[in-house]
Amino acid sequence: MSNILIIGAGRSAGSLIQYMLHQAAAHQWNVTVADADFHTAEEKMNAHPKGRAVALNVLNADERKALISNADIVISLLPPHLHIEAARDCATLGKHLITASYVSKEIQQLDEAVRAKGLLFMGEMGLDPGIDHMSAMQSIHQIQSGGGVVTAFRSYTGGLVAPESDTNPWHYKISWNPRNVVLAGQGTAQYMENGQLKFIPYNRLFKDHHLVYIPGMGPYEAYANRDSLSYRSLYEMPDIPSILRGTLRHVGFCEAWNALVQIGLTDASFNIADSAHLSYHQLLEGFMDKHHPGKNLKERVAHFLGLEPGHPVMEKLDWLGLFSNKKIGIPNAGPAVILENLLLEKWPLLENDKDMVIMQHEFEYNLAGKKHLKTATLVMKGENRQDTAMAKTVGLPMGILAKLVLLGKIPLTGVHIPVMKEVYEPVLEELTNYGVVFEEHERLLD
Amino acid sequence: MSNILIIGAGRSAGSLIQYMLHQAAAHQWNVTVADADFHTAEEKMNAHPKGRAVALNVLNADERKALISNADIVISLLPPHLHIEAARDCATLGKHLITASYVSKEIQQLDEAVRAKGLLFMGEMGLDPGIDHMSAMQSIHQIQSGGGVVTAFRSYTGGLVAPESDTNPWHYKISWNPRNVVLAGQGTAQYMENGQLKFIPYNRLFKDHHLVYIPGMGPYEAYANRDSLSYRSLYEMPDIPSILRGTLRHVGFCEAWNALVQIGLTDASFNIADSAHLSYHQLLEGFMDKHHPGKNLKERVAHFLGLEPGHPVMEKLDWLGLFSNKKIGIPNAGPAVILENLLLEKWPLLENDKDMVIMQHEFEYNLAGKKHLKTATLVMKGENRQDTAMAKTVGLPMGILAKLVLLGKIPLTGVHIPVMKEVYEPVLEELTNYGVVFEEHERLLD
Repeated sequence: MSNILIIGAGRSAGSLIQYMLHQAAAHQWNVTVADADFHTAEEKMNAHPKGRAVALNVLNADERKALISNADIVISLLPPHLHIEAARDCATLGKHLITASYVSKEIQQLDEAVRAKGLLFMGEMGLDPGIDHMSAMQSIHQIQSGGGVVTAFRSYTGGLVAPESDTNPWHYKISWNPRNVVLAGQGTAQYMENGQLKFIPYNRLFKDHHLVYIPGMGPYEAYANRDSLSYRSLYEMPDIPSILRGTLRHVGFCEAWNALVQIGLTDASFNIADSAHLSYHQLLEGFMDKHHPGKNLKERVAHFLGLEPGHPVMEKLDWLGLFSNKKIGIPNAGPAVILENLLLEKWPLLENDKDMVIMQHEFEYNLAGKKHLKTATLVMKGENRQDTAMAKTVGLPMGILAKLVLLGKIPLTGVHIPVMKEVYEPVLEELTNYGVVFEEHERLLD
Repeated sequence: MSNILIIGAGRSAGSLIQYMLHQAAAHQWNVTVADADFHTAEEKMNAHPKGRAVALNVLNADERKALISNADIVISLLPPHLHIEAARDCATLGKHLITASYVSKEIQQLDEAVRAKGLLFMGEMGLDPGIDHMSAMQSIHQIQSGGGVVTAFRSYTGGLVAPESDTNPWHYKISWNPRNVVLAGQGTAQYMENGQLKFIPYNRLFKDHHLVYIPGMGPYEAYANRDSLSYRSLYEMPDIPSILRGTLRHVGFCEAWNALVQIGLTDASFNIADSAHLSYHQLLEGFMDKHHPGKNLKERVAHFLGLEPGHPVMEKLDWLGLFSNKKIGIPNAGPAVILENLLLEKWPLLENDKDMVIMQHEFEYNLAGKKHLKTATLVMKGENRQDTAMAKTVGLPMGILAKLVLLGKIPLTGVHIPVMKEVYEPVLEELTNYGVVFEEHERLLD
């Protein structure tokens, strides 16, 4: 009788826990869900006979090791920097580990130890990273095994709101970590275009967006992710001339978000001592300078942005309440924290709102002297605020893999990400039962 | 017979070591200079009978403690993050400590222990921070003791090249840490203007410069330092309506440096795996995008910057060799490291070049119903590449204070910065012998 330990019962844990409990009932397994907050864990178990909720302070090594030593496989939904604690215990105690986070250098260094014990540590097993790796590699392997040579790979993902629940002028609601929504894109995006390295610094990232057509949905805006280059080696195409990974947003979003960036409202590099007593108006006034005249703040901001006061971007800023005399009310906060709290208030996913995940891969390849374009597109909507497409697509791949490992169907040891056929084939196959279905199109170019 | 230990014999140690050896001869003291590189320390001692050079691995606690336990006072010229190692030893072993770096929170926490042992730890005892504190506080105390109320304080410092050694189109040569030259201003500048908090994000810092007139020298450009607000409490003027600290550059510098910032060449947030084999031309091409047409890279960059190809900014970029096909030659370097190495090659201080330090304070104050303006200006030139104004103004305040402490003339214990009369008065007085002389002007405003 196998024991599955899930550490962390937060935002994206619901679908995973439901799946795991269902499998546990079918296979006579047990599921333990541990969270810093016992009630969060208990609530998500819904008194299931195969489930047990426990409180865990993950930084308490004794508590953590006691739990892990009773498990056969551990699924860690911890914040990324804490995975290593669980990972070291799993390596020592001889337990498999699955996470949806990027594989850190520290975890990669456990590879030899993990392999020696016949264990599997699978990272990047969520949506992005996760389903992106699996679905891209499935197409790339298909093209290559047919004799094709991939010359361009572009891959886009967006965590969005479904059109039927889209009720605000930004056309965005928060279905994942709000801090990451605010900090998205900070750093410099690197990608490759026709053999030339390309760099886009943060301060022009949201201006340099391009349109991507999603079949059945229409055009979306895409901005470049920070890291596209490492995918050349991850996907074993070291010499591919063009590679770009990007993030999708509703048309009009990037221009308005760029206004927030240009003003300075996404800045996480400093705190404002008096922020609690400052109004949004005073905060914005602080970022304006004497070169931008106007008879009020709104006119000065419009002039600063090079826009007419009635421009849709100005309407979006106004709708957020940035010109209001309301007090910020959070002490010693910097612009990014202030904006995060404002967006949580303005962009909530309401009880019956549906979120939407879009992922699209574009492959250009040469075959028999002709240039081809293949696209593979996933559009998936959630049910409501709890049962989001985001939670399903992040959680289910981990659950499915955990089941396959416990059933002895994954002949793999060491630290990995899901780019190999023996993983992506059964996982993608089962994911289709949950609505994770890619629509494919093929055509000749030129 | 007192022992003085100087840890670190790098760029700005020369004047301090010469001063300390001279005082040692006069007072029968001994000076030990410790550096990671024995020869660097030995060379700067010039076989002086009162001096001893030693090799020190500062991270080796035994070596470090052995040296410190033999000293009566320690002057640390270590990189800022390493001062704490020496500071903890000084607190334990009962030794005075002087540094030219900002007082970190960790060092501030030693205050009670230091005070209990009757020791003095003086930080920010160089030029900026250092001479700026002392000279500003001298004027502020003079104004206040005469019944004046300071309503605006603006303070500017620049480490520059003297006009007679100014031989390049950027009008800049490197007289201090080159990495800090490249990273200068990163973060968001905060200051106060007429009671309104003001913020300038990095990406418009060098565009938002203003002119400052230096008596006898003409206009210079100034951009805001990251932190002006904390000086309200440091200088005990918590309610001052206007406070700004800034950095001085030659006219024309800020616009050209802003071009480097806008392109992305000061970015330290990422490394380029292939940087060694990339040319400067390819690097720059990587930062350009399709919105900026032109028949060659130079035209595209000019279009991106909104300039004519013959604009002086374009000439400065060209003079740096940014359009050349020369290979960068440094592996796995990011833009900031690449630029730092290029500037070290293009902006060196030559053997007989004179550097120049300018510091200017401006005080607006109300007295007897009238508005006054007082300015205090230091313009000081170096002798040559070794004997720079920068090394003198950073090193001599520490040396003078060390002497005063050993002679029992500083009745002060605890962790401090030099804002009190009993420190600034004797130190500024002695500094005038070395050319550190502020020229003062007073006039009525309105």
